[in-house]
Amino acid sequence: MDKNNFAKTPPMGWNSYDYYDTTATEEDLLKNACVMAEQLKPYGYEYIVCDISWYAEGAGRDREHYQYLPFDTLSMDAFSRLTPDPVRFPSSADGSGFTKIAEKIHALGLKFGIHIMRGIPRKAAHDRLPLYGGKYTADLAADPGSICPWNPYMYGVRDNAAGQCYYDSLLSLYAAWGVDFIKCDDIAVNGLYRNEYFSGWHEIRMLHEAIEKCGRPIVLSLSPGPAEIGKAFLYEKNANMWRMTGDFWDDWDALKRMFERCELWQDHVKEGCFPDCDMLPLGMVGKGFGEERRTRFSLNEAKTMMTLFCFFRSPLMIGAELTKLDAETMLLLTNRALLSCLQDGSSGREIYRDASAAAWKNTDASGNVRIALFNLEDEEKTLSLKLSDLEEALPENALLTEIFEHTEAQFKDGVLTVVVPAHGVRAYFTTAQV
Amino acid sequence: MDKNNFAKTPPMGWNSYDYYDTTATEEDLLKNACVMAEQLKPYGYEYIVCDISWYAEGAGRDREHYQYLPFDTLSMDAFSRLTPDPVRFPSSADGSGFTKIAEKIHALGLKFGIHIMRGIPRKAAHDRLPLYGGKYTADLAADPGSICPWNPYMYGVRDNAAGQCYYDSLLSLYAAWGVDFIKCDDIAVNGLYRNEYFSGWHEIRMLHEAIEKCGRPIVLSLSPGPAEIGKAFLYEKNANMWRMTGDFWDDWDALKRMFERCELWQDHVKEGCFPDCDMLPLGMVGKGFGEERRTRFSLNEAKTMMTLFCFFRSPLMIGAELTKLDAETMLLLTNRALLSCLQDGSSGREIYRDASAAAWKNTDASGNVRIALFNLEDEEKTLSLKLSDLEEALPENALLTEIFEHTEAQFKDGVLTVVVPAHGVRAYFTTAQV
Amino acid sequence: MDKNNFAKTPPMGWNSYDYYDTTATEEDLLKNACVMAEQLKPYGYEYIVCDISWYAEGAGRDREHYQYLPFDTLSMDAFSRLTPDPVRFPSSADGSGFTKIAEKIHALGLKFGIHIMRGIPRKAAHDRLPLYGGKYTADLAADPGSICPWNPYMYGVRDNAAGQCYYDSLLSLYAAWGVDFIKCDDIAVNGLYRNEYFSGWHEIRMLHEAIEKCGRPIVLSLSPGPAEIGKAFLYEKNANMWRMTGDFWDDWDALKRMFERCELWQDHVKEGCFPDCDMLPLGMVGKGFGEERRTRFSLNEAKTMMTLFCFFRSPLMIGAELTKLDAETMLLLTNRALLSCLQDGSSGREIYRDASAAAWKNTDASGNVRIALFNLEDEEKTLSLKLSDLEEALPENALLTEIFEHTEAQFKDGVLTVVVPAHGVRAYFTTAQV
Amino acid sequence: MDKNNFAKTPPMGWNSYDYYDTTATEEDLLKNACVMAEQLKPYGYEYIVCDISWYAEGAGRDREHYQYLPFDTLSMDAFSRLTPDPVRFPSSADGSGFTKIAEKIHALGLKFGIHIMRGIPRKAAHDRLPLYGGKYTADLAADPGSICPWNPYMYGVRDNAAGQCYYDSLLSLYAAWGVDFIKCDDIAVNGLYRNEYFSGWHEIRMLHEAIEKCGRPIVLSLSPGPAEIGKAFLYEKNANMWRMTGDFWDDWDALKRMFERCELWQDHVKEGCFPDCDMLPLGMVGKGFGEERRTRFSLNEAKTMMTLFCFFRSPLMIGAELTKLDAETMLLLTNRALLSCLQDGSSGREIYRDASAAAWKNTDASGNVRIALFNLEDEEKTLSLKLSDLEEALPENALLTEIFEHTEAQFKDGVLTVVVPAHGVRAYFTTAQV
Repeated sequence: MDKNNFAKTPPMGWNSYDYYDTTATEEDLLKNACVMAEQLKPYGYEYIVCDISWYAEGAGRDREHYQYLPFDTLSMDAFSRLTPDPVRFPSSADGSGFTKIAEKIHALGLKFGIHIMRGIPRKAAHDRLPLYGGKYTADLAADPGSICPWNPYMYGVRDNAAGQCYYDSLLSLYAAWGVDFIKCDDIAVNGLYRNEYFSGWHEIRMLHEAIEKCGRPIVLSLSPGPAEIGKAFLYEKNANMWRMTGDFWDDWDALKRMFERCELWQDHVKEGCFPDCDMLPLGMVGKGFGEERRTRFSLNEAKTMMTLFCFFRSPLMIGAELTKLDAETMLLLTNRALLSCLQDGSSGREIYRDASAAAWKNTDASGNVRIALFNLEDEEKTLSLKLSDLEEALPENALLTEIFEHTEAQFKDGVLTVVVPAHGVRAYFTTAQV
Repeated sequence: MDKNNFAKTPPMGWNSYDYYDTTATEEDLLKNACVMAEQLKPYGYEYIVCDISWYAEGAGRDREHYQYLPFDTLSMDAFSRLTPDPVRFPSSADGSGFTKIAEKIHALGLKFGIHIMRGIPRKAAHDRLPLYGGKYTADLAADPGSICPWNPYMYGVRDNAAGQCYYDSLLSLYAAWGVDFIKCDDIAVNGLYRNEYFSGWHEIRMLHEAIEKCGRPIVLSLSPGPAEIGKAFLYEKNANMWRMTGDFWDDWDALKRMFERCELWQDHVKEGCFPDCDMLPLGMVGKGFGEERRTRFSLNEAKTMMTLFCFFRSPLMIGAELTKLDAETMLLLTNRALLSCLQDGSSGREIYRDASAAAWKNTDASGNVRIALFNLEDEEKTLSLKLSDLEEALPENALLTEIFEHTEAQFKDGVLTVVVPAHGVRAYFTTAQV
Repeated sequence: MDKNNFAKTPPMGWNSYDYYDTTATEEDLLKNACVMAEQLKPYGYEYIVCDISWYAEGAGRDREHYQYLPFDTLSMDAFSRLTPDPVRFPSSADGSGFTKIAEKIHALGLKFGIHIMRGIPRKAAHDRLPLYGGKYTADLAADPGSICPWNPYMYGVRDNAAGQCYYDSLLSLYAAWGVDFIKCDDIAVNGLYRNEYFSGWHEIRMLHEAIEKCGRPIVLSLSPGPAEIGKAFLYEKNANMWRMTGDFWDDWDALKRMFERCELWQDHVKEGCFPDCDMLPLGMVGKGFGEERRTRFSLNEAKTMMTLFCFFRSPLMIGAELTKLDAETMLLLTNRALLSCLQDGSSGREIYRDASAAAWKNTDASGNVRIALFNLEDEEKTLSLKLSDLEEALPENALLTEIFEHTEAQFKDGVLTVVVPAHGVRAYFTTAQV
Repeated sequence: MDKNNFAKTPPMGWNSYDYYDTTATEEDLLKNACVMAEQLKPYGYEYIVCDISWYAEGAGRDREHYQYLPFDTLSMDAFSRLTPDPVRFPSSADGSGFTKIAEKIHALGLKFGIHIMRGIPRKAAHDRLPLYGGKYTADLAADPGSICPWNPYMYGVRDNAAGQCYYDSLLSLYAAWGVDFIKCDDIAVNGLYRNEYFSGWHEIRMLHEAIEKCGRPIVLSLSPGPAEIGKAFLYEKNANMWRMTGDFWDDWDALKRMFERCELWQDHVKEGCFPDCDMLPLGMVGKGFGEERRTRFSLNEAKTMMTLFCFFRSPLMIGAELTKLDAETMLLLTNRALLSCLQDGSSGREIYRDASAAAWKNTDASGNVRIALFNLEDEEKTLSLKLSDLEEALPENALLTEIFEHTEAQFKDGVLTVVVPAHGVRAYFTTAQV
């Protein structure tokens, strides 16, 4: 198995976190899957991903003080492997884990993903519970010096036979459940420890090895960032996507900083290897965090985000509750001209960037070019782009169509000049393209 | 109670670590106490301190791989408080803890100290064991995000009522046992976490409060360093001593670096407040580490160490196995002229220092001055000191006696010039002084 | 000469910078001196200090773009020594430098100080101008790799004979002029370079040596901070005052941060050695910066500043234009109870501090105690202080008088409880004290 | 002009630094050019680059104390532009600069390059000398806060019209001289200043603009490193090569670290864009540094270096004195199988790397694969490579020929296993390839 074949193009789907925080239920997953199957699948969206704490029996309790309750009870099987909380995921009560949910999602023509924390449950290690296979116990796999700075569930896994046995057993279980996608947390960056104490670096390798052994093509997504550019080779060899930033929310400053990260990582976007801009915080979000609300991004900002993410070829994971999608957001998520940037063979590249503006191009396998001009300032501005900066055979007189508004534009004397609203974008394809 | 009265002068004694590592037994403590009572007590040595892991039932096992066994069994009472391993400390088998050992040590006219790790046993927190008083359980006091980077036993304690209750119960128990001295580990410096995650800062305060409540004058020693100079006020308000460096061993480069630390902290040596140079790695050491050996310090280096530590007024904790003390080491440890620098009212001060040499003075309450010239280079050197740099009424013609060799010297034309051996020292008192 | 005798108590005076920036003239200095002699001298203020750029012929030109004009013409004598700009300091036109100004200031019973930049004029080095004595040229003393990050005038001085010759000649000239105080800039902290390139560390020593040789007791003030605590010994051996922070202005956040710095440096306040809180930005300031304005400090904030600076025993250099002093500011600057904290033998010490409040005490040579409670929050608050925290023989029933408002207060059951306004202070002396 | 066309493949040539330090002369350049034309040109070597200090009249004087004499006299034209020292470069005495040397080198079928320091001569700025065009003077272009940490010649250039005018005039002069290659120093990394003070970032842009304006295809090489990966886009847009490390010499540890840098930068090797491993310190080097000597690299180490540099596709600049080339070094430099890795369309990629071993592949435009296994340890080792790791259509039974020794090898059961000497390499091409 070549892991780069598991995700030839950037994975697209939905993730429960932005709306549900730690509280998503079986019903929540399935109702979002239904919307996706009907409305979004034709555009390429296919993953339904259940985010953090699906095994935490008290998830969401005392939320004001704790996102993750210290010393909370985690649902676990006899081999130190976490299992879905049967209260929130009733179909798992018979011990079948996520099997039935995965089956229903597969039946809709979609794929199913879960979030995991790097490591092995702390409680299992302290109680020296057995690992699958009968050869080792959890304390032998666990590294008591390796913890997550913000989550109390797990210990990091040692780079030894017991550790690999644990990860192998985990992936074997997930494969049996029908999992297609794993988002592993606390692993893409060393957020707390000195680097020499961080076991995440070898846990990335161990997870990859376990996936290869399990025989099922499971996409591996690493979280959170900022991923370290000096570890690019490690990510590329072992994973399919890795987060370039910390948690991304609907905040304009965070979006501006994303331009810097996209510049840094643009040479690392390859088949099966996708630096990840994080979820799309659009539509209705925040319910599990105590405040159900509409995205704070203005329409211009949302277009800027979608254009950057697509031109760069980031994975696209929708954060919005899909049952509450409004038409405006739907249009953004399903803009075919934009989504075509994600196709196999396309490649994105920054043309210029400074504190006030940026320009990108995205070229498809046939050489068709899309261009985007971003206004990063707080006031409307006239931006320009030189034809010579495109380094491509775009004819001088090419007719350009704006991706969102379908207005037309042309280079004049080798320069394209457009008025771009504050925080907004003007993106173009050539008429022949779509 | 004013904690500064607990230690008006730098504490002097013996600590089990340098020789026994984690393996000291009841018998070991008592035989060292006997030697101290007979030979060292007249010079001011009085503390017998049992260092780390006295509660670890497997201490010393698999030493090649682990100094502290992960997920090892720790002896504990019903209230989440660690108790002595009854195998190594048989007198504790009846549940009396260190009471009987402390009694025997007190009967010798000595004082008794123990080492503790900052925090509460992890296992107690995961099992939600009760705390003394019946009001709280260990999980409420424990912070699962606060661990020690190199030791797997404990979680840091939260700054809340459950946490204070735990520390109060701990000190109450220690007071009942007859403990006179606590060396708390993993607390004087944030070795692993970002500062904002390090609970040690408030645990220092909580320990001090618990000592005040327990009603027994227990000296509080903080370890390991390098203590942060920016936290000097915190240490001074709450503790009696705090380590200025990481673990200090018989290594010349480490001793050279100690000069820098002594310069930095010299203004913070006060009654009840003693920046700490760490144990004296002299005589026979290293047995518990797998290699019983004589100190690697040459005699000149050992004199340099003793002179710096005494002039600076560091606590003096002997690391040597006392039953194996040789005459040369004994002479160093009991040099009255040198030890008089530790007396109440004395104060030490650097006169100059660069990479190749240093000079210190120590002035007693009566204004008598001792001076020391240190050669930090690898070859014999002639060092000098200007009388005017002493800022004291030392008469031009004062007769100086060398502290170790009893040779005499004098200032000539306001300058003292002496040949000092490589890595060595020449230290002087005025004849009238001792 | 013992430099600690030059300033047995914290120097007090006036500095031209806060009001005039780089533009002070002979007339400005003298008119401020007149006010000081009449109104402030009785309270201990005595230094008139001319701050930066007195040699810069274009000082103040193109101020919008540059505070210090690049490649500007500096007035210089034949030996690479900067001399006053004869346009702004007409009495220097005859080549007598600051002699006549110093004479007039001395005649008023005051002392005279000047600002210098660390180093030797760059132009002198590039033109290989001679140094005084005929033995060396400026290029031999200058280190072309040592510059100031924000000022283009000087190169750092090498630690060689040519360099010492230059500094000796400089101090010899200043002594001849009648200078009593030097504020040397770009020297107390390495603001730009890696430490190993920073020649300031040896220039501090060289300046001290030059002062000793010049035979005149010239106070040495080092600027700007934040001075490094690890260099405390260097400062104390060679200088009389050193800045604990970057430039301090009338900004509440900066004042709050000063509490942290005062805690850090409190053990280093000694006769002749004064960590420095920087100028008092009170009254009218800012004219040379393009905006003549009243201090932004509210009266409560100004009291907080004066109380902290006096309790800590910082030097007190007024930043206000003295000819425009209002009565309220005058009262603050001349509060005798407060200023008595600066007396010889007094010592200040923090009692507690956290993000919302702080308490200090200052004890004089006779053991009289003043106490201050600071409210660092944005709303009025009740603060308290335990008698036991004073560690002093203040009788339980001592009658306390507030330093600014002369209201009375007493400890009750060992606790003093007072309402303190937002950003304000309540400070007390015992009635017998003043 | 598209700067990526100036260097479609990694530039190859010779640089005077490793042998001559600052002292190369006209004669030295020409005699090395003769050797290159005869012996090395057939293999692709074509640049003769004169390194630092060709304008310094005293270059090499007092070498024991200074590599670059402070305040030395630099040969300069009337417009603040440095010109060759006429003593060492006699043909420039008529004011024609490097014109005649360039002509001779061109006549040999070679290209000519020079080293420059970022910036404008300090002396010119202090003397306010004119810039070409009569509109500006040097002080307006110079930033007195921007210096090189280790070289005293220049000030950084401001991002203004005067600054661009200076760089334009410089490139215009160089184009007139016939310069084909510029190695600009103190520009690829901020070695001294805080980033916000470093003018090099905009000077990279300004130099590129000046090259575009000058009309001559001049290759731009940036030095020294370690270049910042976060600035990759800046380098790629404006330069042709940039150093990945500090100065590289014949030191095994430095060579081992180069593997890490090659991994980091491998995705940035593109047509016209070459991360640079620095000169090849082979053959005879060091004369100008005071010690003429043979390279310290063993033959195995030299092969490791050549193989890594070629597989990665670094520029290849010989450091050896060419007139003293021995046969062994000559063979290394002219290995056709190895040099073919540099061809247009080839691309290199790390396969694995840890502290003890590394493997690389290099694939040419036709899909032919070369592979290399490096032993980074101090003892002979057996290394292996899985066919599946090559991701290429190399047939299972492909016959491999070792690049240096012409021995043959084959994969067995999908694994290639070879014994590799300490510090050495085994590199293979398939028989059909060369």
